[in-house]
Amino acid sequence: MGKNILVAHGGGPTAVINCSLQGVVEAARDSGKVDKIYAARFGAEGILAGDLIDLTDVSPSAIAKLSHTPASAIGSCRRKLTDADYPTVLETLRKFEIDCFFYNGGNDSMDTCHKVNELAKKEGLDLRVIGIPKTMDNDLEITDHCPGFGSAARYAALSAAELALDASGLPIHVVVLELMGRNAGWVTAASAMAARLTDCEVLTYLPEVPVDEDKMLADIETRYAKGRGLLVTVSEGICGLDGKPLADTGIVDGFGHKIPGGTAQHVTDQIIQKLGLKSRAEKPGLLGRASIPYVSLPDREEAYAVGKFALESALNGESGCMVAIAAERTPQYSSSLFLTPLADVANVEKKFPLEWIVDGNGIAGTFFDYAVPLMGGDFPEYALLRK
Amino acid sequence: MGKNILVAHGGGPTAVINCSLQGVVEAARDSGKVDKIYAARFGAEGILAGDLIDLTDVSPSAIAKLSHTPASAIGSCRRKLTDADYPTVLETLRKFEIDCFFYNGGNDSMDTCHKVNELAKKEGLDLRVIGIPKTMDNDLEITDHCPGFGSAARYAALSAAELALDASGLPIHVVVLELMGRNAGWVTAASAMAARLTDCEVLTYLPEVPVDEDKMLADIETRYAKGRGLLVTVSEGICGLDGKPLADTGIVDGFGHKIPGGTAQHVTDQIIQKLGLKSRAEKPGLLGRASIPYVSLPDREEAYAVGKFALESALNGESGCMVAIAAERTPQYSSSLFLTPLADVANVEKKFPLEWIVDGNGIAGTFFDYAVPLMGGDFPEYALLRK
Repeated sequence: MGKNILVAHGGGPTAVINCSLQGVVEAARDSGKVDKIYAARFGAEGILAGDLIDLTDVSPSAIAKLSHTPASAIGSCRRKLTDADYPTVLETLRKFEIDCFFYNGGNDSMDTCHKVNELAKKEGLDLRVIGIPKTMDNDLEITDHCPGFGSAARYAALSAAELALDASGLPIHVVVLELMGRNAGWVTAASAMAARLTDCEVLTYLPEVPVDEDKMLADIETRYAKGRGLLVTVSEGICGLDGKPLADTGIVDGFGHKIPGGTAQHVTDQIIQKLGLKSRAEKPGLLGRASIPYVSLPDREEAYAVGKFALESALNGESGCMVAIAAERTPQYSSSLFLTPLADVANVEKKFPLEWIVDGNGIAGTFFDYAVPLMGGDFPEYALLRK
Repeated sequence: MGKNILVAHGGGPTAVINCSLQGVVEAARDSGKVDKIYAARFGAEGILAGDLIDLTDVSPSAIAKLSHTPASAIGSCRRKLTDADYPTVLETLRKFEIDCFFYNGGNDSMDTCHKVNELAKKEGLDLRVIGIPKTMDNDLEITDHCPGFGSAARYAALSAAELALDASGLPIHVVVLELMGRNAGWVTAASAMAARLTDCEVLTYLPEVPVDEDKMLADIETRYAKGRGLLVTVSEGICGLDGKPLADTGIVDGFGHKIPGGTAQHVTDQIIQKLGLKSRAEKPGLLGRASIPYVSLPDREEAYAVGKFALESALNGESGCMVAIAAERTPQYSSSLFLTPLADVANVEKKFPLEWIVDGNGIAGTFFDYAVPLMGGDFPEYALLRK
């Protein structure tokens, strides 16, 4: 008799989270060792409610569409499980006779995953628990990078380049671009690619370095004066010298995190009022994690691979681990997968290296050595005839 | 002896404006009748300053890159020419011995184009003047649609669908998407495609219909309660019952138009404060006219074709006209080009038909019959396993 498996999504989606689901489902089918394939409808909410989607007989063509479906195709949630919830989780796992449980998420979700595994062991449940990494923020430890980051970074890089060309081709205002990333500046750093891809001046601010607003405005004034157009890219979570966010929406998420936002508009208002320059703020927001046309192909492939590897690892008897990625960048990019204990990644946040931030408003070449292969590498060459 | 030609860009760019430039340049080279190919550096500013870019010997491979270069590759400006400027324009045309002048822009630019043509005739200058249509706003009269609109509409439709999936896959907030379009709702209307492509509820508000904010909030509350996630799409320029914009940036552009903005954030604030729902505003802004990965292929082809047709028309002795597009939609989409007098399109704004707006918050199927072929038609099918 084959195994029954359950896949769940936790937290915010990425542009390739469904590719990991596709990897699990197709590997399960290929293995010949899986009976029932379940997905939790809306993540932890579905698990707690015993509301599972039976994917066992879903057509291969519908599963194939997952590769270009944004957001979570099975639904996700931001509910943080409490100690009181875990017995209910185990109840659902028992009811549906689940043998292998895959939780696809970030460091919050890996904590959930770890607790489910510990409780299952304690209660003598014969359960394999494997975490599948996912976060556009790239803030999981141990793994070289996270599936979802490469696509979010490609979105940031190309969008910033496109805005930079707009700003330098019609140089009437300072364009300020706000990008996602509460505490980790990985995605915003990718936007600094715009300076390499265009003729525009670019200033980039990450949440890792407190921003001196007076210096920021002085730098904006100086760079704008060069007359090549100016793009300023900011992480939604940047803070002032007092350690407080420059702006926030006043909303708190399910994990108790305050949701930043309005940072670009705040900077734009300062530029207009204090420098007397025209300025406009752009905030693609969730599009940075949902856009399919900007997906990085290596990211898509790796997202699929971690799902497949998770399934195979569980069938091999592994448990209590997260799939992680090891990468080689020379002479050319290649990656491989391995397992790391959930305890080592749960609730740990990988910060952007401070030494990769130059003068508080630029990004070092070492970051691009790291990130360009993850973004797909194949950046367009633009025609800049106005030079 | 061959002709000398000059191309200039006016106003805001589109994602395919450079394709029209490519069409002019490649047709000029193919004709064997053109000596010098000039472009105005930063539009009217370059013409007034006598600052032209000589494209005559630019390599074919550099010209080919125009097809995927956003913004204006030669530079544009928002300067509105005054009566005092026109003699200077003619001076530059004389100095560079220009035989054919092509101005690529919207209805403001067609007015400029018309005045140059009239003055040249009056002064006995042997000059051919042809307008090349361009505007993401789709608000030029006579022509079935404008190059640039199809790509902006595709951006709006796909981005809205991606956000809608994000909103219905993790239904914790009402997502409000702001799209460009000051007075004409063509692009925002395209975002209503999201309801056809996803399982999400979608409400769409155009600038053509004054918005009753109380009714808007009541509709948002009702639709959100269905539990399928809610996306609200708004044009940056929507006005309240008092006829005033719900929000504006306080900035005035070079043509004297007040720049709207912050509309989505305003609606989001109302949703949070008055309905007690979580909400977030997204504003991709200029990305809606600059994004290359979302370009509509028929739009790219037509943008090239209008440039080529403009060149050929001028060489055939035509002047004082704009290239316009005629389209057939049944049994399948096809388009052809014709010339229309500049006087008929200068400063005229084509409005979105009121009868295509349903209940003030939805878009009629007739709009999609009109617009889907322009957006490229090939919309993705998403995997929605959570249904």
